Parts: sequence; structure tokens; C-alpha cells
Amino acid sequence: MLDSHSVLRQIYGTPLGLLTDLYQLTMAHAYWKTGGAESEAVFHLFFRSNPFGGGYAISAGLDQVIDYFNDYQFDAADVAYLSELRGNDDKPLFEPGFLTHLKELQLQCDLDAIPEGTVVFPHQPLLRVRGPLIQCQLLETALLNIINFQTLVATKASRITSVCGDDPVLEFGLRRAQGIDGALSASRAAFIGGCAATSNVLAGKLFGIPVKGTHAHSWVMCFDNEREAFETYADAMPNNCVFLVDTYDTLQGVRHAIDVGQRLKERGHQMVGIRLDSGDLAYLSIEARKLLDEAGFHDAAIVASNDLDEQIIRSLKEQGAQISVWGVGTKLSTAFDQPALGGVYKLSAIKPTGGQWQPKTKLSEQAIKTSTPGILQVRRYFDDQGAQADMIFNELDGASDDCVMIDPLDPTRRKTFASDQKHEDLLTPVFRNGTRVCERISLAKIRTRREQQLQQFHSGIRRHTYPHQYPVGLETKLNELKTNLILQAR
Amino acid sequence: MLDSHSVLRQIYGTPLGLLTDLYQLTMAHAYWKTGGAESEAVFHLFFRSNPFGGGYAISAGLDQVIDYFNDYQFDAADVAYLSELRGNDDKPLFEPGFLTHLKELQLQCDLDAIPEGTVVFPHQPLLRVRGPLIQCQLLETALLNIINFQTLVATKASRITSVCGDDPVLEFGLRRAQGIDGALSASRAAFIGGCAATSNVLAGKLFGIPVKGTHAHSWVMCFDNEREAFETYADAMPNNCVFLVDTYDTLQGVRHAIDVGQRLKERGHQMVGIRLDSGDLAYLSIEARKLLDEAGFHDAAIVASNDLDEQIIRSLKEQGAQISVWGVGTKLSTAFDQPALGGVYKLSAIKPTGGQWQPKTKLSEQAIKTSTPGILQVRRYFDDQGAQADMIFNELDGASDDCVMIDPLDPTRRKTFASDQKHEDLLTPVFRNGTRVCERISLAKIRTRREQQLQQFHSGIRRHTYPHQYPVGLETKLNELKTNLILQAR
Repeated sequence: MLDSHSVLRQIYGTPLGLLTDLYQLTMAHAYWKTGGAESEAVFHLFFRSNPFGGGYAISAGLDQVIDYFNDYQFDAADVAYLSELRGNDDKPLFEPGFLTHLKELQLQCDLDAIPEGTVVFPHQPLLRVRGPLIQCQLLETALLNIINFQTLVATKASRITSVCGDDPVLEFGLRRAQGIDGALSASRAAFIGGCAATSNVLAGKLFGIPVKGTHAHSWVMCFDNEREAFETYADAMPNNCVFLVDTYDTLQGVRHAIDVGQRLKERGHQMVGIRLDSGDLAYLSIEARKLLDEAGFHDAAIVASNDLDEQIIRSLKEQGAQISVWGVGTKLSTAFDQPALGGVYKLSAIKPTGGQWQPKTKLSEQAIKTSTPGILQVRRYFDDQGAQADMIFNELDGASDDCVMIDPLDPTRRKTFASDQKHEDLLTPVFRNGTRVCERISLAKIRTRREQQLQQFHSGIRRHTYPHQYPVGLETKLNELKTNLILQAR
Repeated sequence: MLDSHSVLRQIYGTPLGLLTDLYQLTMAHAYWKTGGAESEAVFHLFFRSNPFGGGYAISAGLDQVIDYFNDYQFDAADVAYLSELRGNDDKPLFEPGFLTHLKELQLQCDLDAIPEGTVVFPHQPLLRVRGPLIQCQLLETALLNIINFQTLVATKASRITSVCGDDPVLEFGLRRAQGIDGALSASRAAFIGGCAATSNVLAGKLFGIPVKGTHAHSWVMCFDNEREAFETYADAMPNNCVFLVDTYDTLQGVRHAIDVGQRLKERGHQMVGIRLDSGDLAYLSIEARKLLDEAGFHDAAIVASNDLDEQIIRSLKEQGAQISVWGVGTKLSTAFDQPALGGVYKLSAIKPTGGQWQPKTKLSEQAIKTSTPGILQVRRYFDDQGAQADMIFNELDGASDDCVMIDPLDPTRRKTFASDQKHEDLLTPVFRNGTRVCERISLAKIRTRREQQLQQFHSGIRRHTYPHQYPVGLETKLNELKTNLILQAR
């Protein structure tokens, strides 16, 4: 299956082989030179704790990973650039033969991934990459960049939209986002996380996300008075009227909007609503609702914006704010209270050419930072109530019949399953030997998947304070393997 | 002057006209339809408070703004996309004539800007855009996106590199940055802020930033033991040896590095140093320094990384840590403790076709959010000690002879200058009528400018806790104009 249409390629005019840390290339050079390049390796991408102190995360970014795999390339200019890099003796860092290898490189990796929009938890591999060691290593940095950020923002959006219930949430973050693609990726991930639309028109075009927007304060300031500004706007855009009412005096602004809304009605149009962007949003929305209702505009929306996040929205709802649409920008698109997901990508097994698989673990003084060895899969068990627990097992050993899983941070915490219990394996094949083997999933379907997924879990995982800790454990043989490897190394 | 080579165009394969909020396009449509499109307007881009609770910011991003101006375009696919958008009556949002206007649009704006690498303060226009109202409005969102983020990261990097003194700081943020361009822009801005190099190879190629990197834990894990891993790496890359020593036991790792360093020396090469990435960096660096010195490796660098920021680095220095090179990633590239600069872009004057300039201010309940009217310029006054204060004045009225400036938030705070005092106007011409009129400045020169600029200021502005508040005020006539406009509106 060829992808005729790569969003990543549309966004980035340059090949992305060089989008990596230099140490990936120096290691690749060293593998190439010392004969280890073609050993088969397995790496997993995972995070160690849920972002925002929450009880879950929403996986996102896989579709860009697919584009990245498809377009993976070093072109002549890339190789020319690399040939100019020098070591501490001022001689070239890379040998010409290695650069030729890069230029001719065709990805032969297998990729398994948890589909986008899935509810995921710490320690679970979101991606599993298997292939020549040199290739797996070169992919690391870009995979982390793509998955870390989109998973972070999809999770943030999911937290925000969960608080908003059925109220639509609009993503307005472009102006404060971290770079152009920081904004585009955030718009995409926010939509996965449940947002209804974005203000970012390019994201709308590239990803098919609905776009929303009407006018700003500057529109109002260009006229002698607010009423004239609303009237002129309504004349020009009668089918897109949300009046921003807080340029001068908010409730006076609502009255002007009502006047112009009446004029619209007389001409066969309908005012969509008003927007509040400053002041006491609880008080102003309640008063605005009264004015709108008295004037017969029961259907007019009250949109609110101004540094909103899930905490402020919940507080406004508790205060009885009459806000029906939420515009969320900076706090969502930059994941303001935790602007990075600490996802990592760790080697977990290696098979030298002609040799056997050797499981690998990265030690650490902190147990949480010790990685899990093997070729991993995540099995989610269900009972009548929904998802019950996730068990990570090593495909090299298979899952035991005893159906016990062990907490990776506290081996005395265990959970047992019935051997015939309903389950689903989360990692699914995406690439085999560099060729895509799965269908691409539309963004709308991914967005629906998140909603359906969350229904499968106890609502306690969505709590913001002391959320329910959903059980994730290691299968017994895997736990034993990991323990033995740690003891051996120490 | 034509730019044959646009980095933005290299990065983004798609035109960026649609990189805007939808409301800019709906307002543009409404201006176009109701006759206001060609009024001349002036907008200023500024921020309201220094990021990170600091005493200054470093301007950055202008070179990408130049690319953005040069490449500004709506292509046929953009216009086709816009033609499909619908209003609440399911009829098209935009008229065909407006879409033709967009497709044929050629920027005619003037742009004045404070050069990159300048020390800047709240309320000062970093950009001033003057031209047809419709064009100024369409540019808003992308200008904010570019300037907000790069200024934020350049400032963060400047805080970090100031603490490090002469020690090089390496930017390692790609894997945790917010999207691909979040990483690329961060690498560029971090270099402006004083970083010596980046790990991001694509940023190295696109922006000419030095790149650094050697090997990761995964390299060590691929071998039976650490010593073998170091030896193999040294055989393959003898001119690029910084050994990561903390995969198993850090001080044992230092001893292995020393052994391999001796072998390198015997073969005519030089070990660059070692890297610590976990554990007690103060203790471990002191012990590692002793081991290296005892073995005669006095020049070997000790690189440290692991969630560093300016606070942790200062603390490590206070503890006598023997770290000579600092690798900083997530906390720098995402500006972790304040991941967005709240820059805004406000209309400040408008001149209807055939009419007079009308200064404009945006009111707010909060004085700090009331914008300054006029066509603004920033004049920086110097005395023997360096920069003394910045005065914002309105070019329509010129600067008064009384040489008094007034604090925008407290009109009783004033400062007087000698009329012959040395001064410099910070906003300089970049575009006139859509054509670039300044030379582009190399990144290396911008980086040097930041260093020189900081020397001009009292060191108190660099303090992290309760920094010196450098005085920025409004010229008297401008202050009067602003006050009168506020009183009129109220």
C-alpha cells in the first residue's frame, strides 16, 4: 500500500532523516564500522507516569509516524552536510562508505503500535520497533518527538473535554503554540482528545478538522462604536455571527449583539451567539444568558475564552456559569502545566546475526527507570464492568497459564485472571519489513475511538485529584526475567 | 533584494497563508466586502511581562518572519479549501471575489522590528506592521506564533547560559520538544540565547548551528560489558569520544573511560571527555574529576545532563560540581516553567482612505492590558554606565523636548533625561511596501549581539529572584494621548 498523500511531506519540504540527535548518527556510524549494524534489535517507546498527575493518557501521533516511516530518507544535501562535520582532530566525523549507506538506506523495520485514541498507561509500549539495530537507533529521536507531544496534548484535551461534558470545546492555541508545527500537531491531537474544532485554518486544511472563528477586538476598534462594528460585520458575514462583546462594556455589548441579532432575524439569518473574552465569566455569562433569553435568543450560544483550562472550567461550571462553548488556547496547545511527556525509547532485546535473542534491561538507581526486557505485548483484560487490568508479556516466552500479573514497582502487588477471560492485545502491526500493513485510520474515527475507549474504564481514572490507579503489571515469566537480569548486572 | 533561500520554505513544503486563525479570514472577508480593507493600519506586537519572573527578554524569530513575509501566499488548493467552508445557513462562508483577492494578494506592508538578540522589556513593540488593514490583520497569528516562541526560548537559554558562565551549554531538547518545528525553532532560539551547540542535526543543517553527540546507553547495552562498548566505540569514532559512564556503575564507568582514553592516546587520539546522565551529579563529577586528573586527563571534559535548568545548574555550581559542559533538554526547549510568552498584536492607529490617522487603544479592566495608541518607536537612553531607560514615543507626535518618560502602570513614576543624552531607536526598517530593505543577519552575529547587549545593562536584570526592574516609560505626549483616549471611551 503506497501513500500518495503524506501530510508530513506537505508540511515539511525537506526530508526528515536528519531530524535526529547527532549521537544516533555517530552510533550508527560505529555500528556500521564495527559490524553490529545488522544485528536484529527491538526497542519500545513508553512513558513512566501519566501526565498532569492524571489517571490515564490518550495515545496519539501514529499517523505522523507512518508518514515519517514512508518518507524516511537522507538526500544528497543531507549527506553533503554530514560529510562536512569534523571530529576533535579536525578530520571528518563520518566515512564516505557510511554516508553512501545512509543515502541508500531503505527502512526494513517492523513497527507495532497501540492505535491512536487508545486509553494508555505508564510502562506500556506505545510503539515497538524491530529491525536492523542501526535503523532502530536512527529512528529514536523523531519517534519520541512525534509521539511525546501528540500524546501529551491529546491527553490534555481529553481532560478538558471530559469536564465540559456535551459543550463543544474549540482549540484556539496557534498564536501561543511552540512553533508552527507545535501548533499544527496540537490542533490534531486536541481534536483526537475531543475538541470540536480549531481556529487554525491550516490544520483544518491538512487534517480535515472543522474550523471556527468570527471576529476580534480589532474589528470593533476599527469603527466609531460597537454597534456599528457588529452591524457591519453582520452585513458582511450574516451566516457566521458570534459577536465579541467585551471590547468596551460587556453587558452593553450583549445588548448591541441582541439589536443586531434582531436585524439578522428580520433578514432571514440567525445569530450564532456571543463571545466573552475577559472579566468575571461566571457573572457575565449568567447576566448575558438572561438578556439573550429575554430577547428570545434562547438558542444563541455563549462562547467563553481567556486562559481557560480544565480547573477553571470546572470552577465556572460549579458557579453556574451559562457558557455553552469553550475556547481553549495556550493552556491546551502548550500543555501548560506539564509541557513535556517524558516518553523514552529503550532497547529491550538484541539478536546478533546468526545468534539468539538476548533480552536487555537498562538499570537505574530508581526502580521506575529500569526498563523491561523482551519483545513486549500489552494484553488488556475485560470483565462485565469493562477493562479490568493490563498485563505486559514477552512474546518470546508467551503468556503463562497461571494468569497472574505483578506490579512492576511493587512485586507483592499481584492480580489473577480467569484463563478464559476476555482480552485484547493492544499492539497491532503497522509496518512489516518497511512496508505498511495496516489501513490508515481517519482522524474522525480516532476521535470517536477515544470516546468509546473512555467508556470502557472506571470513571475514577478521569478524576483530576488522586485518580484511580488502573492496574498494569508484568506477566510472571517476564517479571522473573527482568528480576534475574537486574540481579545479574548487579 | 530577493531571498533565494528560505529556511521556512525548506522546512514547510506548503504555503503558509492559511497558517492563521479563521477569524482573521472572516474579518478580512468582512473588510473586503464593506470597504475597509484598504484603510491604512498600524499594529504592534509586544508582551506584557517578562517570562520566568525574570528581568528581561531576548528578542528572537525575526528571520523566520522575513521568510514568512517573502513566502506569503494562498495557492489554488488553499483557496479551494476556503471555498468549501460553510456558515450556519450551510451557504459558503466566503464570496468568490474575496478568494480571488486572496489568491492575488501581494504583501504591501511595512515592517519595523527590534533586531534579534536585543535585550527587550514589556510593552515595547518587537514588531510594528503598517499597511492595508486587511493585510495587517491576516498576518497577526503567524507573527505571534513565530515571535512568541523564539523570544521565549532565547530568553530561557540566556538565563541558563548566564548561570554557566564560560562553560558551554548544549541543547538536547529534540525528543521532548513540542512538534518537529517546536524543536527546530527551539534549537535556533537556544543558540541565540547563548547555547554552544545542539544535538538536532536538522537544525544544524538548516541554521548552521554546531552539532554535538557521541553515544547513548543503548550503545553500551549492546555489548557484553561496558569496557568493550567503549573500546569498540573508540575504534569506530576515535575523534569523537565522550563516554557515557552511568549505564551500570558511574565511577567504574569513569575508570573504563580512562582505560580506553589511554589506548586512544597511544594511538595519537584524544578522549574529549565523559558524560554523566543520572545520580548525584555534584558528588559524581567531583569524584570523576579526581580520577581523570590522577590519570593525567586534565583536559577531559565532564559533560552533565538529566533534566537540568538554571536553578539546578546554579545549585550544582554552589556545591562545587566539577562539570565543564552542560547538556540541557526538556526544560530549555519547552521553556518548561512557562511554556508560552503571552505576546499580543494590537491595532494602535488607523487611517481610512483619504482620512486622518486615528490613534486606537484597546481598553481593559486591568491597566496592564490597555494597549498604547499611535505609531510607536522605542528610544533607549545611555549614560556612562550603559543603558539607563527606554522611552516609547509616538512617531506621529515625535518625542517632546522635556525628555520625561512616565511609567505606563503608575503615572507618578517619572524619569527625566538630558536633551543631548546618547540614545538609540530600537525599531528598524525591515520591509517597505512588501520589499525587504534590510540585510539579513547571520545567526552567529545575532548570538554575539545578545552577549554584547547584556553587557550594556546593570547585572541586576539578570538576577533570578526579584530582578532589577529596568525602567520603560511613555513619552509625555503619548501618555497624555493614551489617558485621553481611555477617558473618552469611558
